Amino acid sequence: MQHDRRPVITFLTDFGPDGAPAVCRGVMLGIAPDAQIVDISHNVRKYAIRDGAFLLTFALPWMPVGVHVGVVDPGVGTARRGIGLLTGRGDVLIGPDNGLLPAAAKALGGIVEARALENPALMLPKVSTTFHGRDIFSPMGAHIAAGVAFAAIGPIVDPGSLVIIDFPAPVVGERRLDTTILFIASFGNLHLAGSGDDMAEAFGVPTPGTRFRVTFAGRDGAPDHEETVPWARTFGEIPNGAPMLYEDSSGRLAFADNQSDAARRLGATVDQQVRIRPA
Amino acid sequence: MQHDRRPVITFLTDFGPDGAPAVCRGVMLGIAPDAQIVDISHNVRKYAIRDGAFLLTFALPWMPVGVHVGVVDPGVGTARRGIGLLTGRGDVLIGPDNGLLPAAAKALGGIVEARALENPALMLPKVSTTFHGRDIFSPMGAHIAAGVAFAAIGPIVDPGSLVIIDFPAPVVGERRLDTTILFIASFGNLHLAGSGDDMAEAFGVPTPGTRFRVTFAGRDGAPDHEETVPWARTFGEIPNGAPMLYEDSSGRLAFADNQSDAARRLGATVDQQVRIRPA
Amino acid sequence: MQHDRRPVITFLTDFGPDGAPAVCRGVMLGIAPDAQIVDISHNVRKYAIRDGAFLLTFALPWMPVGVHVGVVDPGVGTARRGIGLLTGRGDVLIGPDNGLLPAAAKALGGIVEARALENPALMLPKVSTTFHGRDIFSPMGAHIAAGVAFAAIGPIVDPGSLVIIDFPAPVVGERRLDTTILFIASFGNLHLAGSGDDMAEAFGVPTPGTRFRVTFAGRDGAPDHEETVPWARTFGEIPNGAPMLYEDSSGRLAFADNQSDAARRLGATVDQQVRIRPA
Repeated sequence: MQHDRRPVITFLTDFGPDGAPAVCRGVMLGIAPDAQIVDISHNVRKYAIRDGAFLLTFALPWMPVGVHVGVVDPGVGTARRGIGLLTGRGDVLIGPDNGLLPAAAKALGGIVEARALENPALMLPKVSTTFHGRDIFSPMGAHIAAGVAFAAIGPIVDPGSLVIIDFPAPVVGERRLDTTILFIASFGNLHLAGSGDDMAEAFGVPTPGTRFRVTFAGRDGAPDHEETVPWARTFGEIPNGAPMLYEDSSGRLAFADNQSDAARRLGATVDQQVRIRPA
Repeated sequence: MQHDRRPVITFLTDFGPDGAPAVCRGVMLGIAPDAQIVDISHNVRKYAIRDGAFLLTFALPWMPVGVHVGVVDPGVGTARRGIGLLTGRGDVLIGPDNGLLPAAAKALGGIVEARALENPALMLPKVSTTFHGRDIFSPMGAHIAAGVAFAAIGPIVDPGSLVIIDFPAPVVGERRLDTTILFIASFGNLHLAGSGDDMAEAFGVPTPGTRFRVTFAGRDGAPDHEETVPWARTFGEIPNGAPMLYEDSSGRLAFADNQSDAARRLGATVDQQVRIRPA
Repeated sequence: MQHDRRPVITFLTDFGPDGAPAVCRGVMLGIAPDAQIVDISHNVRKYAIRDGAFLLTFALPWMPVGVHVGVVDPGVGTARRGIGLLTGRGDVLIGPDNGLLPAAAKALGGIVEARALENPALMLPKVSTTFHGRDIFSPMGAHIAAGVAFAAIGPIVDPGSLVIIDFPAPVVGERRLDTTILFIASFGNLHLAGSGDDMAEAFGVPTPGTRFRVTFAGRDGAPDHEETVPWARTFGEIPNGAPMLYEDSSGRLAFADNQSDAARRLGATVDQQVRIRPA
């Protein structure tokens, strides 16, 4: 990566607030002292690879072209590979080959080239079995940010061999949209599979105030829960505490209680089925 | 903003730990790659505009002169304006016109000029209805940090037209100080309306060890709670777990339990009335 | 500290998410505008000096040589000194003389020179009694990062006069290792006194799959809790939710439930006694 500007390294993990992200940042700055390191989040739900993939896909398109290190890695120290992905936009993604990275690479212009992280000269001298974030991913990312060629990280691998996580897709039916909770944000908003376009396909373009029946599937034998909810353009159109359906800032379908925590109120969980019908 | 140094952008939101602050940071760095971005906090109590205003007023006077982006914005996407405030010290504050910014501007030398954020050339090309932090406030702030003139953001507005949040003020009475809980910190310390000077006006300058009766008003029909508490100069003068009244590091009156969480012990809440009298 | 690169300042506190770390960062950047400031953690358990010392010892060896400011300071404003420690590696540690810093200095090549923080020219003009992080430690650290000589901070003090916190040490017995929980990480993993070498001394070098009886001492009259647990090289060798003993990424003995929170399951606490024996 050639640059006149300070190189950008973004960084996402499920390491929490204990100092492990700082250790990685220290390793990066030892190698790339001028890097602008941007923490995406270190509060990814522990071991939740798909949550990490969701957040990378949400965040990376807004970042400058750079190196993106992602570590949600329950398989650390096992046979799972480390990978680097070169994207159409010119970014390099670094992390475990467990499904964390490909969806975000797709959002950055697709995978142009994939390589396995195998060059020990770009790792720390001693590699532990439990902290590859520190020993492999951070130094690899920092070396690339500092100007090392992508090809140096290791041999090319077939992009078709990468571990892929399938995100649930919505199903447009007869006056019906069957979707799924993809991600629950810290506000308690529910981000659903599908987009405003899927809503339009199922029901015609919704106008603010149009009401829909939303059915949350019961889990573990619990009954379904149904409520009737308006389509809204933004939060301020809805009374405080009341629910709404809307297109979120990424163009994705979402359900929220205005100024309140819908996930807590509903006991909602990731992967819960949600059916939307006209009211 | 002319500068030889890296420009400083400070950033406060109620976005929480999910990646939304990082998205804004990415947008800023795309426009102002050399910026030093300082996160004030992204853990402001959700939708609590006054808490955000309190924290900005607490923090900004200690920051280098720069651009300060604040986003606690329950009215995002409605008719509420975006504003920029030029301060006496030379800072520029950017955020919603909902009371978040003026108190902090006052602490930075006052508002010299106020403008509405209306220049689309300084926003992202597509502006969503739910994420103006990303689409308007961050790019506006970053353009100013990168050298764009304050006047470019949009037309001048009358500072008298800005939404103002009134912070509760203390009332000095006959051997009595009536005050209010303004903010509850993560340590559980209670920051009260008023200053050490107000204490001195009510009781004469308090000396360490002088005891006061502190009455927390009962809420929702609950009885008042009263305790007798020493004035202290610092925490170490007080036994662990014991309560104290003191002047905090901002010169504000405060109530704390040494090394313990007074807010939790007392069930204290923001805006609760507190009466202080001699013991 | 002479440098061509941007100087590194690392920063650890128990200040939490309220804006106090940002205030300190603002003070630092006002003095050392080019500094790369690395937050180690601001979520140290409140007032837990030894937790802070543990995290500094964990993190600092991975940081570039620089200035390291640590503030866990229940004695702020009392007679306890502020200190600066010059290390064998060339780092400078700044913070209260309460045991927070010496263990980390030892991990950076030992204390070469210790000085008291007494030069008012390197503090803020007005020093509060409750926020020395802002008024003394941050400006002292930033001045050193900006090039001020270590000797300028104040007079030399005898390193033997520093407050030292003793970390519990393991005791190798007859086919037995008596250890203690040193630190509980956010994953719920238990980091124990002692290393893989201590295990080897007690039992011979353990091989993955070797089983041990682990006894957690009951506290406050509760009975002991014992379970039989395999030695593992990494998490992926163990079923989800199952316990394991292992050498952590710092070479320290540790106990974890794979992808689950062992501390919560066991009700484990810092300083709890743990005995390890062959199964």
